[in-house]
Amino acid sequence: MSGADLRVVVALGGNALLRRGEPMTAEVQRENIRKAAPALGKIATLHELVISHGNGPQVGLLALQAAAYTEVDPYPLDVLGAQTEGMIGYVLEQELRNVLPEDEELSTLLTMVEVDPEDPAFANPTKFVGPVYTEGQAQKLAEEKGWPFRRDGEWWRRVVPSPLPKHIFQIAPIRQLLDRDVVVICAGGGGIPTMFTADDPPRMVGVEAVIDKDLASALLAREVEADLFVMATDVDGVYTGWGTPDQTHIDKVTPDELRGLELPAGSMGPKVSAAAQFVEATGKRAAIGSLEQIEQIVAESAGTQVVAG
Amino acid sequence: MSGADLRVVVALGGNALLRRGEPMTAEVQRENIRKAAPALGKIATLHELVISHGNGPQVGLLALQAAAYTEVDPYPLDVLGAQTEGMIGYVLEQELRNVLPEDEELSTLLTMVEVDPEDPAFANPTKFVGPVYTEGQAQKLAEEKGWPFRRDGEWWRRVVPSPLPKHIFQIAPIRQLLDRDVVVICAGGGGIPTMFTADDPPRMVGVEAVIDKDLASALLAREVEADLFVMATDVDGVYTGWGTPDQTHIDKVTPDELRGLELPAGSMGPKVSAAAQFVEATGKRAAIGSLEQIEQIVAESAGTQVVAG
Repeated sequence: MSGADLRVVVALGGNALLRRGEPMTAEVQRENIRKAAPALGKIATLHELVISHGNGPQVGLLALQAAAYTEVDPYPLDVLGAQTEGMIGYVLEQELRNVLPEDEELSTLLTMVEVDPEDPAFANPTKFVGPVYTEGQAQKLAEEKGWPFRRDGEWWRRVVPSPLPKHIFQIAPIRQLLDRDVVVICAGGGGIPTMFTADDPPRMVGVEAVIDKDLASALLAREVEADLFVMATDVDGVYTGWGTPDQTHIDKVTPDELRGLELPAGSMGPKVSAAAQFVEATGKRAAIGSLEQIEQIVAESAGTQVVAG
Repeated sequence: MSGADLRVVVALGGNALLRRGEPMTAEVQRENIRKAAPALGKIATLHELVISHGNGPQVGLLALQAAAYTEVDPYPLDVLGAQTEGMIGYVLEQELRNVLPEDEELSTLLTMVEVDPEDPAFANPTKFVGPVYTEGQAQKLAEEKGWPFRRDGEWWRRVVPSPLPKHIFQIAPIRQLLDRDVVVICAGGGGIPTMFTADDPPRMVGVEAVIDKDLASALLAREVEADLFVMATDVDGVYTGWGTPDQTHIDKVTPDELRGLELPAGSMGPKVSAAAQFVEATGKRAAIGSLEQIEQIVAESAGTQVVAG
């Protein structure tokens, strides 16, 4: 509680909730979170802690369920995102409470993140969401709802834009709670994308889009003035030559060095960008590593540590 | 912002989101909330404001959607409740932000409410949730899942217990935010029912139950030490002789007088109990009335005002 050393933002990768190939049941997700809770709990007792998390498979499930029930039109993606912030935040907070002393306070905050209507991502939707369709079904839905579709293997799926996060609307209450040593769970799924309309006065509206959760978490870390921004995943850090005989774990690196590395495309890309952005903007430390080693990552003895040059 | 006169808890009735007979679309609910926002916004600029809300139809829809998609077992009711806290809180917060000055801070908090495993409600489940079934379907589900069912007209529906709320786990952060003049949206749907198991040490677990939202809001009002607890609904107060030629609006009443009245059963019952409990426990004021008259209710010039005897 008192004597917090560092203000730490931990972004939980999707695997903290659901590993590849696992069934999407409530029990499996709770069990995974239960396993992750003790390590996160130790960070919470030593430091000021903010936790963010992904929501990709969960939003996908809600979209499938909504599409299966045809009496009421499926709710838009911003509302589904809000649902996942509730459901994932709930299980995370409950299982953290189960490992923390009774006097440790926790709070899960619904989080909206501002995006720019002029963001070029809106002209080029790339993120798959929801069920797969045949070409004919996709064409029908494209006409009915105005959704863009792209081919995904032999099926078609809806795509939405992935604009950059600009500002977290709830940042003041998040900071106020951190100042009082409350553990805050927020910015789930990268936050609910929200923009101002061109009306006079402008109106705030939800947007059917997906914000990259690592970039949103980096913004969160900047806006709460975190000392440390950790992305916790299922790999113990960034590697050069991944999958080759020369595979090498990077222990410590500057943003410039990171950008100079040839890294394989895929899930590390956004993490590397987010880490570099945070370190360059703040001069503070970022780290990428395995959730199981979260204590050592915070203590600088595991993961890939990204530090100012 | 500054100079708040009163700390006010407003419990929004289900009709603030969805009126009887309206389709359950996202647009209808947003439109209803948009209409309610200006009046609530005025309270927020003058006072410290906490808003709670119902979630009955929304949980029902999620249960129907989950039942329609058969690839993944439906999530338990506590998780569905958490989803509705996210989705309803999101739309409420966004539409309130649209009517409030930019420097007014708002926050939606996920809320778990403690219930007692020994609560007699667990022996007598009474609250309908989810889809209607034929008798045969209900028997099959009762065997498969262990759910109790009751007849609802010509169909059968699952019933869950409605235990009393004992404590709000997030009360410290809620109070901290109110102390900083942040508008707080919380305790949606009566909060997520949570209990401690008989394990050593006890574990916190979610419960498939529904807490009455008016009783949960009364508890919230007590625990934040509210000066005023308002239940906003679609009727402008409590009446004697409702629907008869002698129908009379009650302007001001004590808890003792309220209990002595012969009131028709139905939705006013829990509100009257919740108001009486709050006033007796605190000596402060409660009120029941129409959401459209919320400003006059706070100013003591509309609704039914319940005051200490």
